[in-house]
Amino acid sequence: MNLKIKKSILLENLLKVEKAISTKNIIPILSGIKFDLTEKGLYLMASDNDMTIQTFIDKANIEEIKTIGSVVLQGRYIVEIIRKLPGEDISLVMVDEYKVCITSDSSTFNLNAIDPNEFPKINMEDGKVQVELSKEMFKNIINQTSFATSTQETRPLLTGINLKIDGDVLECTATDSYRLAKQSIKLNNFYQEKINIVIPCKNILELMKILKEDEDMLHIHIFQNRVLFKFDNVLLQSRLLNGTYPDTSKLIPTEYTLKIEAPLMQLYNVVDRASLLSNDKEKNVIKLVTDKNIMIISSNSPEIGRVEEKLSIEKLVDSDISIAFSSKYMMDALRALKCEKVIILFSSEVKPIILKNPENDNITQLILPIRTY
Amino acid sequence: MNLKIKKSILLENLLKVEKAISTKNIIPILSGIKFDLTEKGLYLMASDNDMTIQTFIDKANIEEIKTIGSVVLQGRYIVEIIRKLPGEDISLVMVDEYKVCITSDSSTFNLNAIDPNEFPKINMEDGKVQVELSKEMFKNIINQTSFATSTQETRPLLTGINLKIDGDVLECTATDSYRLAKQSIKLNNFYQEKINIVIPCKNILELMKILKEDEDMLHIHIFQNRVLFKFDNVLLQSRLLNGTYPDTSKLIPTEYTLKIEAPLMQLYNVVDRASLLSNDKEKNVIKLVTDKNIMIISSNSPEIGRVEEKLSIEKLVDSDISIAFSSKYMMDALRALKCEKVIILFSSEVKPIILKNPENDNITQLILPIRTY
Repeated sequence: MNLKIKKSILLENLLKVEKAISTKNIIPILSGIKFDLTEKGLYLMASDNDMTIQTFIDKANIEEIKTIGSVVLQGRYIVEIIRKLPGEDISLVMVDEYKVCITSDSSTFNLNAIDPNEFPKINMEDGKVQVELSKEMFKNIINQTSFATSTQETRPLLTGINLKIDGDVLECTATDSYRLAKQSIKLNNFYQEKINIVIPCKNILELMKILKEDEDMLHIHIFQNRVLFKFDNVLLQSRLLNGTYPDTSKLIPTEYTLKIEAPLMQLYNVVDRASLLSNDKEKNVIKLVTDKNIMIISSNSPEIGRVEEKLSIEKLVDSDISIAFSSKYMMDALRALKCEKVIILFSSEVKPIILKNPENDNITQLILPIRTY
Repeated sequence: MNLKIKKSILLENLLKVEKAISTKNIIPILSGIKFDLTEKGLYLMASDNDMTIQTFIDKANIEEIKTIGSVVLQGRYIVEIIRKLPGEDISLVMVDEYKVCITSDSSTFNLNAIDPNEFPKINMEDGKVQVELSKEMFKNIINQTSFATSTQETRPLLTGINLKIDGDVLECTATDSYRLAKQSIKLNNFYQEKINIVIPCKNILELMKILKEDEDMLHIHIFQNRVLFKFDNVLLQSRLLNGTYPDTSKLIPTEYTLKIEAPLMQLYNVVDRASLLSNDKEKNVIKLVTDKNIMIISSNSPEIGRVEEKLSIEKLVDSDISIAFSSKYMMDALRALKCEKVIILFSSEVKPIILKNPENDNITQLILPIRTY
């Protein structure tokens, strides 16, 4: 391998693949980035066996390709070195099987290399089932649901995001069993095959970091036990979580005794202040009571004090409620909704609270109340 | 206590005093902020027994003073509450001896209060020995020395900054026994009494955070076992470290065999890159060799690889050297110097390396070499 390349181009691509570098040092080769220089261009790849990212730099964007070849370099070092090199152009030359010389201006690094044959062979070929939607739409649907996944490994399936396709409707669901976020969108195409997969949330969040929010298409290839995302010059592949995702449709009440509309930002700030005196250990429980067109949100900590906040609301279906819930979950849900006003639906003090965007019925945020005695 | 005050004014002052709140929960009262409302205005005070900060809000800046009085509120909560309250104006009313009601718009907090008599009595009266210099000059001298203090409690005196006044010269010194930073400045006045004190660096750094960089005067009152800084509407008092600070003047070599001049930013970047392959645990040792008008900086890690960097230098006193030192210490010293070119003086591979600003002879940075075998 012997090439000359612009620092900015190489760095941009390294920063994408480094997201898949294993941070656990169990298998040394997985802390490396594989460089694969062909006549067509340079492939960069990293994998932690759970997620794999590959980018491709076309030969048109490489200053000079002298000799093709492959090598694996330690990811942590190569990214920092390329980032800090002084010149505009960088030369990478394989000196022998175990050494790569990187030069730029008056700077010379001789890095130990790892045999590329040790790197896992990862199949990233196209799949039969392909779905496409704009990157912007996908980012949006993930941002409005992903926060509700569980961080607890006790129920591994809930650490993933459930992605379902039925005809031309894509539905994303996330729940940690105390709250739930769901959004559906209409796709441009109609799909014959029904899809129901669970993608590890941590891998989706890495995808979010390198997915630009534009109208270009994201292609999703779905396999039995993995999913492949294709966009720009990037391939990102993730394993799927095994098992049947719980049917959450029954969780959402269909009848309501109280339906209110409130200004979202004001409600968010009220909940935020009420949570100041609530206890982290007790899930930051706060209390909500309605009285005519006033919502009273309060919290009480015998050691610190008591807070009471009032907010004017509009009642669309009239009755009153007294209910308690986690302020953190309420703030997460409100933050995800991103609208000016929020509709909140209550049926009883022990039934789920539903939050809706009045301008988009396809988003549902659900929070379970907490019983206080 | 009963007053109405602008949120912005109260918050600005709370953010200053909160720096002295004790983070250790050993003595509960020290996690509080004392409010002392007099006919003149509102005093706010916090102390962790090591450092005390007091600010004063003149009655001209208070909307309304209804009843004077004192109370202590839990610091962590009161700052967050005031920060997040919705309105422009805030009312603080002492409901009874143990409760303060804070209201703003439709928000009401009832906070448990602590008896102000439990708060330590701290003497913050003026001292006989007073030194004055501009805040800008003081910030500058501290920024160029404080980083060299020790973080190890084994030699407590080295965790402080040594401040000496002799006539009209103020000298600050910091050392962790492996490197040293020293700067002196000329004061406007001549002081009869010689001063030699050691101030805990962590308290000085808190002072730096609330000291604005302007030309207004900072007044330093020096006592036997404490120092009081007065500026704007703030008093900050710190205890002093006991003991005799080591005489560092003998550490600095007076003769040199090699004197070079190098571009500071380029040298910084070269050292930064060379440190990429050096080992944190071994103090990031890198090697410097001169050969004619070229400086070669290198580092070698058998497991990762080798880096070699070249930099053109100008020799002011000619000879050659091969020396090793900590890249971290070199980068700290270069960062503090803040000049375009740096003068470096060597006498032998086991003698201290001296860095100087060619435009200001009053700053000295010293780094001990590290023997490599």
